[in-house]
Amino acid sequence: MTPGTAPHKVIPIAVDTGTAYGLPAPTSKLTLAQVGAGTPMGELLRRYWHPIGLAADATDTPRQVRVLGEDLILFRDKSGRPGLVYPHCAHRGTSLYYGKVEERGIRCCYHGWLFDVEGHCVEQPCEPELGRARGKVRQPWYPVQEQYGLIWAYLGPADKKPVLPRYDALERLDAGELLEANDASIGGGGPAVVPCNWLQHYENLVDPFHVVVLHSTFSGTQFVAQMAEMPQVTWDTVPLGVRTTSIRTLPDGKVFRRISQAGLPTLRVIPSPRVGRYGRVESLGWVLPIDDHHFRIYVVGRVSEVGELARMRSRMNGKLWEELTEEEHRAMPGDYEAMVSQGAIAHHSEEHLATTDRGIVMLRRLLQQQVDKVQRGEDPAGVSFDPNEPPVVFDAGNYIVEQA
Amino acid sequence: MTPGTAPHKVIPIAVDTGTAYGLPAPTSKLTLAQVGAGTPMGELLRRYWHPIGLAADATDTPRQVRVLGEDLILFRDKSGRPGLVYPHCAHRGTSLYYGKVEERGIRCCYHGWLFDVEGHCVEQPCEPELGRARGKVRQPWYPVQEQYGLIWAYLGPADKKPVLPRYDALERLDAGELLEANDASIGGGGPAVVPCNWLQHYENLVDPFHVVVLHSTFSGTQFVAQMAEMPQVTWDTVPLGVRTTSIRTLPDGKVFRRISQAGLPTLRVIPSPRVGRYGRVESLGWVLPIDDHHFRIYVVGRVSEVGELARMRSRMNGKLWEELTEEEHRAMPGDYEAMVSQGAIAHHSEEHLATTDRGIVMLRRLLQQQVDKVQRGEDPAGVSFDPNEPPVVFDAGNYIVEQA
Amino acid sequence: MTPGTAPHKVIPIAVDTGTAYGLPAPTSKLTLAQVGAGTPMGELLRRYWHPIGLAADATDTPRQVRVLGEDLILFRDKSGRPGLVYPHCAHRGTSLYYGKVEERGIRCCYHGWLFDVEGHCVEQPCEPELGRARGKVRQPWYPVQEQYGLIWAYLGPADKKPVLPRYDALERLDAGELLEANDASIGGGGPAVVPCNWLQHYENLVDPFHVVVLHSTFSGTQFVAQMAEMPQVTWDTVPLGVRTTSIRTLPDGKVFRRISQAGLPTLRVIPSPRVGRYGRVESLGWVLPIDDHHFRIYVVGRVSEVGELARMRSRMNGKLWEELTEEEHRAMPGDYEAMVSQGAIAHHSEEHLATTDRGIVMLRRLLQQQVDKVQRGEDPAGVSFDPNEPPVVFDAGNYIVEQA
Repeated sequence: MTPGTAPHKVIPIAVDTGTAYGLPAPTSKLTLAQVGAGTPMGELLRRYWHPIGLAADATDTPRQVRVLGEDLILFRDKSGRPGLVYPHCAHRGTSLYYGKVEERGIRCCYHGWLFDVEGHCVEQPCEPELGRARGKVRQPWYPVQEQYGLIWAYLGPADKKPVLPRYDALERLDAGELLEANDASIGGGGPAVVPCNWLQHYENLVDPFHVVVLHSTFSGTQFVAQMAEMPQVTWDTVPLGVRTTSIRTLPDGKVFRRISQAGLPTLRVIPSPRVGRYGRVESLGWVLPIDDHHFRIYVVGRVSEVGELARMRSRMNGKLWEELTEEEHRAMPGDYEAMVSQGAIAHHSEEHLATTDRGIVMLRRLLQQQVDKVQRGEDPAGVSFDPNEPPVVFDAGNYIVEQA
Repeated sequence: MTPGTAPHKVIPIAVDTGTAYGLPAPTSKLTLAQVGAGTPMGELLRRYWHPIGLAADATDTPRQVRVLGEDLILFRDKSGRPGLVYPHCAHRGTSLYYGKVEERGIRCCYHGWLFDVEGHCVEQPCEPELGRARGKVRQPWYPVQEQYGLIWAYLGPADKKPVLPRYDALERLDAGELLEANDASIGGGGPAVVPCNWLQHYENLVDPFHVVVLHSTFSGTQFVAQMAEMPQVTWDTVPLGVRTTSIRTLPDGKVFRRISQAGLPTLRVIPSPRVGRYGRVESLGWVLPIDDHHFRIYVVGRVSEVGELARMRSRMNGKLWEELTEEEHRAMPGDYEAMVSQGAIAHHSEEHLATTDRGIVMLRRLLQQQVDKVQRGEDPAGVSFDPNEPPVVFDAGNYIVEQA
Repeated sequence: MTPGTAPHKVIPIAVDTGTAYGLPAPTSKLTLAQVGAGTPMGELLRRYWHPIGLAADATDTPRQVRVLGEDLILFRDKSGRPGLVYPHCAHRGTSLYYGKVEERGIRCCYHGWLFDVEGHCVEQPCEPELGRARGKVRQPWYPVQEQYGLIWAYLGPADKKPVLPRYDALERLDAGELLEANDASIGGGGPAVVPCNWLQHYENLVDPFHVVVLHSTFSGTQFVAQMAEMPQVTWDTVPLGVRTTSIRTLPDGKVFRRISQAGLPTLRVIPSPRVGRYGRVESLGWVLPIDDHHFRIYVVGRVSEVGELARMRSRMNGKLWEELTEEEHRAMPGDYEAMVSQGAIAHHSEEHLATTDRGIVMLRRLLQQQVDKVQRGEDPAGVSFDPNEPPVVFDAGNYIVEQA
């Protein structure tokens, strides 16, 4: 004690720790999240075919679609050929949304230029001789194909166009099965268009633990009782994605082995979480990045009757997502609430990944490798240029093993 | 064949051409499109008077107007003088939209400062002696005039203020004719405020071919049968704009000669496309750029009875634009759909102009010349400082010539 | 006259002055207006406690609040402790808005991580042993306290956390009085959330003249007759704000002395403008900057019965703000209209301050001094670290003096 000062009591004040003061601005792994033309992931995604509509969406009424951040017009000429074109007419930019579909293509409303499904200008009605120079004009377009009840588009460099893959799960039908396509974003947990980045959903595919919490203990058993058990999980990086194997021992001593996969580039290879029957995966889904902040899901499945897929959409208390009140969304959140509330693009800088997030780490690494390949001028995994390429086989399914 | 390699068949794959992959980001001729203060076109437009409201819009209830990207308050003091002032009170910025109009001007609601139609501060009621220094305060204002039932404003440099032009077409009335003003954007094909850049509509004025497609073969005959015939068209750059002459030979062998003009800076000198009678142009219109992404049209015409102009608004199946469903807009698109869907500002970099677009090329060139003149410190075409300037004469009209 | 030229008459044309042409783009005193983390004023405001909700707002249903530009989740665990946390779960970013409140804290819906009110992660249910490393994870949080029926939060640096002030006006109750808290933004003249910068309202507190115009002669007597008299006003900078003294001589010769204060950092120390009784100030208010463009007001007052504060909200013709038509808002504007129409942030560069704005000048100077202090590493006025700090005393009130 300094001489001459009175004794005084020092009250030690605990200083708060861990407060939000000074929290750095969050950042996101944009290299993996952004899908626009010219971005790393956008260029990777543009090396694959993507479903952009149901076959029934291509009609003689032009339809606006947004794919990988690009606005496009989908139609089907009166010869039956689907077409996907840049919306602004090559002449003066009026949207072909207001165009008229004819035998040979789509005609702009403003001055009547007519384009076929490959963008060739076949008529300029106000010009002499219907346009002597019309052959030099091209409406930007993208190639499309129909398969499994969906319209598929390739938005990448023309000389890198792969063959449209076929899938064993959809080629080999059991007795009484038929294929059905659905565009309601089954598996997204909400409406057809989900307002957050596609990667948030794609990562969710390698996360079997959220099923136990979000879909079971937290919001009530949304699927079936056996999914509420905490599983033993292993992940593998396989040539076409990251495979998740979840093992649960059932009350009767049997072992329930569930294998699912996040397939390159956007595939949902997810056996039914309702486990109505054991066996190989019943349906495949494709996450379509609409733009950086929205995605939707197309699903094709083997069903026993038409309408079966539509009945797979999640219900809470018997209600579809859009029928629930805000109060109910909060009391029984699902994938939509969990993922959309991560933000339009999740803040990766703020994450604390744990042992149960190993699949996500592996999936990001795999995606980054594919991005790097494309940047180096190589082809990413899973693209083939061989028209005789056999169907892709996945080993996903819900299986019962008599003994672990 | 290299020794040791097996023979193999090469399948030549046709590589797609003209796809949208790699399409450059579109650009626009902003020098001609943008209208804000300080922009090249904005400064050109600010060298002319513009209609900013009907005479009846200036009342003792302050009215918000947006002109060339500037928000302003229009009112009429209780002495009858119209005023146009900057919205934020010179004192502390409260909007004069909430002001009270009095004999001497407009009073701000917050502290009661009173401004006359030329922005002089004539009272500061909370200040000693009603504001000893009030003479130093000026509410920013613009000069306005009334003519032809419209309020005209000059938003340019004070020392360049031209005389407000008069027009022969509106000064010389035939027996039984009277003048009528209208603010419903007649000719815009939609609602009063059209959400795209003004230039898209202005260019449409020198494009007689779209009438044949958009307004005839595509959406059904919106005007009259003779307008559906493909015309012989010539364009001239005249001192006050670009003039279009369309010649059509009628079934009876007579020649229908239609002359219209895009007048500087924003004039629609368009004879009625309904061709109710032959003769000189019946009405004049002014395209008012509200801001870069919106415009509206004021029209003054010689009519035989009040309300005649309002009945000129386009109808499809008897319905006004706002009464049509989205389905009907798509089945019968008009100027609104054609122009708004070009984008908020058209993508000029993506255009493919053809021989029938010659008028547009000439009009852009004329506008660029006027922009350049102003940039060089010269006066643009059509401004006059002579209070005795005679009315402007246009030779526009629908005429019948017995022989071509 | 030059030889050879004919005589001519020069008409002198008056050139307009003071027009809005060339008006510079407005600027704002962002140093005083902006409230975000890292901004000068934002850091000053973060050195004080702010009310962020009613005590009743902290429940087991998580509530989204926005404070100083930060989005946060307010809740009360089932042990009764209020908590305020960063919305995005430290694990993978799902919002705790969808969390479940438990005895020990709030649980994220996605994978069930559980955080206490100080952000400690107390459970990771999918991880081995409920998360061996969970002790390293912290959900960003802010300290909160309850007082006077409000939840108070401190968003500043942990080592600068002051004691939560108490106020004599709310500690010393007269017979029959009780405290009541209100979150309806009483005094803001509009709805609970006012869409403009907080400073516009805060400055209004040292502006007794607007009462005479805005609330009396302009929109009708909104308060009481004596407030419509033009007062004699003096302002003083006092240690805790700027004090305004308004003197009015009443018809009976008595002197009405009204003292109010804008207290640091956001306090409304405003005696009732309805002057129901004379005496010391009845209530205190705190302006909460929600973000740069929105604020709200919390008020605590001594009342004689519950509900008395709610009845203090302004009415025009018997109607609350939200019950008035646009026409009525324009005919009888109040603080909301005057301040919101200044802009989201007022254009300070365009102001013309007069002698009656002296209080505003003084208040801005005081705020700037406090900002400067914080920037220099000093403590701003009015913060105390002494847990025995006595209640703050204000001399505000409506007083009658027998003689001036």
